[in-house]
Amino acid sequence: MLSPSIIQEFEQLCGKENVQHSNASKLANSYDATANFQALPDLVVSPRNTEEVSGIVKLCQKHEIPIVPRGSGTNLAAGTTPTKGGVVLLFRHMNQILELDEENLTVTVQPGVITDELHAFVEEKGMFYPPDPSSGKISTLGGNISENSGGLRGLKYGVTKDYVLALEVVLPNGEIIRTGGKLAKDVAGYDLTSLMVGSEGTLGIVTAATLKLVPKPTHNQTLLAVFDSLEKAAETVSAIIAAKIIPATLEFMDQGTIQVVEGYKQIGLPLDAEAILLIEQDGPEEIVASDMATVLTICEKYGAREISKAKNEQEAEDLRRARKDALSCLAQLTPTTMLEDATVPRSEIAPMVREIIRIAEKYDVRIHTFGHAGDGNLHPTAVTDARDKDEMKRVEDAFAEIFETAVNMGGTITGEHGVGEMKSSYLEWKVGPSGLAVMQAIKQAIDPNNIMNPGKMFAKSTRKRVVVHDG
Amino acid sequence: MLSPSIIQEFEQLCGKENVQHSNASKLANSYDATANFQALPDLVVSPRNTEEVSGIVKLCQKHEIPIVPRGSGTNLAAGTTPTKGGVVLLFRHMNQILELDEENLTVTVQPGVITDELHAFVEEKGMFYPPDPSSGKISTLGGNISENSGGLRGLKYGVTKDYVLALEVVLPNGEIIRTGGKLAKDVAGYDLTSLMVGSEGTLGIVTAATLKLVPKPTHNQTLLAVFDSLEKAAETVSAIIAAKIIPATLEFMDQGTIQVVEGYKQIGLPLDAEAILLIEQDGPEEIVASDMATVLTICEKYGAREISKAKNEQEAEDLRRARKDALSCLAQLTPTTMLEDATVPRSEIAPMVREIIRIAEKYDVRIHTFGHAGDGNLHPTAVTDARDKDEMKRVEDAFAEIFETAVNMGGTITGEHGVGEMKSSYLEWKVGPSGLAVMQAIKQAIDPNNIMNPGKMFAKSTRKRVVVHDG
Repeated sequence: MLSPSIIQEFEQLCGKENVQHSNASKLANSYDATANFQALPDLVVSPRNTEEVSGIVKLCQKHEIPIVPRGSGTNLAAGTTPTKGGVVLLFRHMNQILELDEENLTVTVQPGVITDELHAFVEEKGMFYPPDPSSGKISTLGGNISENSGGLRGLKYGVTKDYVLALEVVLPNGEIIRTGGKLAKDVAGYDLTSLMVGSEGTLGIVTAATLKLVPKPTHNQTLLAVFDSLEKAAETVSAIIAAKIIPATLEFMDQGTIQVVEGYKQIGLPLDAEAILLIEQDGPEEIVASDMATVLTICEKYGAREISKAKNEQEAEDLRRARKDALSCLAQLTPTTMLEDATVPRSEIAPMVREIIRIAEKYDVRIHTFGHAGDGNLHPTAVTDARDKDEMKRVEDAFAEIFETAVNMGGTITGEHGVGEMKSSYLEWKVGPSGLAVMQAIKQAIDPNNIMNPGKMFAKSTRKRVVVHDG
Repeated sequence: MLSPSIIQEFEQLCGKENVQHSNASKLANSYDATANFQALPDLVVSPRNTEEVSGIVKLCQKHEIPIVPRGSGTNLAAGTTPTKGGVVLLFRHMNQILELDEENLTVTVQPGVITDELHAFVEEKGMFYPPDPSSGKISTLGGNISENSGGLRGLKYGVTKDYVLALEVVLPNGEIIRTGGKLAKDVAGYDLTSLMVGSEGTLGIVTAATLKLVPKPTHNQTLLAVFDSLEKAAETVSAIIAAKIIPATLEFMDQGTIQVVEGYKQIGLPLDAEAILLIEQDGPEEIVASDMATVLTICEKYGAREISKAKNEQEAEDLRRARKDALSCLAQLTPTTMLEDATVPRSEIAPMVREIIRIAEKYDVRIHTFGHAGDGNLHPTAVTDARDKDEMKRVEDAFAEIFETAVNMGGTITGEHGVGEMKSSYLEWKVGPSGLAVMQAIKQAIDPNNIMNPGKMFAKSTRKRVVVHDG
């Protein structure tokens, strides 16, 4: 609980109308898209500009109040839950596209801009911002940057960090720094831009960002390939890359996901298929045509039982939407959905999916898998019920074994969702004790009083490893 | 001076034959490619593997001896001079390509591998490692990574950091960490890979790296466009990008550089032109053809007085070589060459070149400019004589004004060479006092005893700003 005099200090700074402490507003900001994590903040503040953000941080520093920057709360690793209470920072007033620089192919935005709004804005002008998290309809760019969001186009185009050229950041001491620039090349000191991207609000608050754009691809083509076996689908993925084709999208859904998505969407997905691949290429017309012809031949050769090309943009968008909405469809099955993002080298996709199936059976839980096959980023999703404590325990154990399996295959515990509170006790599995110590030293150096999103990324203790048996 | 007993400890660790302390070997490692910086090390050690590197670091930590990791010493910012003495670490035994993973499109290398050797190795197998610093014939990948080297292909393909997926690093405490993985997506904790890339050996020693490859472009085409005016050349650069074409190479040489290069190379460069552009596109045949046709039309439209296409790979390579050898040609003019890499947003190329000309006149020094027009990374190069103290002072003042001008235009003091000792007193101009404080806090957190390449990146004091008058 903050004293009335402290609350007044925030009100003086940002205006009374931008400081909320009703139960309703605290409750609305007590959780994000992660099941089973919730904590009430003490105050919800909506600054109007960078100077107010700096002022808020200084106030929080003075009173040792935790700060949790929050976009739209679509986080899937409990990265935006106010674990230790404190002030939730909303960017609803800082939601402007500040500048489009067509000559330097950059756009400068405030953190509250919605991802898909930026997509529409730049595409209308013939430009393209590739990162496309599935939550783009509501997620904010500030959230994307703080989490280094991925998406369906990661394989060909990379992820958010590959498009952040410059940042304005309010540091934990309230000072404002500007990193990078409208520059393809800049080696003046440590790469603070990359350090801030994906730091989950634990090192500072992004108040503006300059993003790199690329020319918008003129054409694209989408196809759906249906497989009777998981291995054949995985072999197809490898064969496409081996043919030196890097598709814009190379997505995967397993049988369980297909059935659920088809149940809700009814777009004709094959209910008896073991796997489908959604493959899209973009670029100049000739390249798209020749790449997709090769892809089609490869799909046939590796045993796709059915291949259908989207006849027009509407059909393509239906297929993309089906994949993007996989989580929402699964979420309608049971009261609780837990979506993970264990990621492995592309070559390990088939073994990893097999392992996930084995692990789900071992713990007697229901896990469906879909995801970005092209870049090895899978989304095993448990459909469960948080009220069933016994089952939740088994889900947690199953995910622990999935994380360990991914790490043992040269992968990671999180490909695009972040560590947050949810995966903090697994971080050491990926980065090792020495790597974790370096990260903690950096955190301590930049935020010595631990006011920036405390309780995230770093856990009190690391979870004991499970023994992974060879599948 | 290290005591014989300390030297013996190094000999016991790495073998007597890998520990040198003759005057000749100290002298050979006392300077790099940067004029006017030199300092003798105490010992030159060539470890055979990561464990020996770790052992060396622990010994250095124990005796508080500075460590300077060194590739081929091609650094242009005095980044590899042993400013505070100590141990120079050579990677001549750690020069193997460890693994080519065609399925995941990665290659894993030791730090001592020569850049162009990797190019040849992967290209023979149909793959491509884009970063191509002009010193690639002798530079090492360890050096490229520690400096985040750029090159001619930066505009389209990015720089070294865009291709480093995973690192093995020996920390200042001797511990070995592994960052990243063969993963397009990994958000497990802070991005230590990006932090280490470009950290100039001040945070740790890279002992292995996994690099991302792309399919080798099947075709390329090169053309040379000759301009009577700098502005027209610069406008052409902007118009090409505005036409949504991102060439693989878009290089610039001013008249002074043209004359010197032609003097040595005699490949028919026009001595009276104010600027030439070297433009190259790569990719599928149809795209290269259509892009280059557009480029040609743009060059004509913006007033190129002459445009010549390379008829074959030999002619293209001659043009590329002429540009890459610009520095060596200039170096033959006078005893001392000082090459800088001030970088501006692409839109500022013409104003920046004009400013460089004005500044050279103001300080009565001879500066020729060439560089990567497409990404705004210029190389103003002073041809001078280090023995002429008065002229050297004027060169230094001229560069100070050039750096300030670049920063005022939204650029940076260094685009691809690094800060090193040479530009350490300018770093604050780019990153500001708060940014510098963050970098120093990180350095202090990871290397509290400052044994890793001390005297680099961080200066005792920041140079006083010159007043820049509007040109």
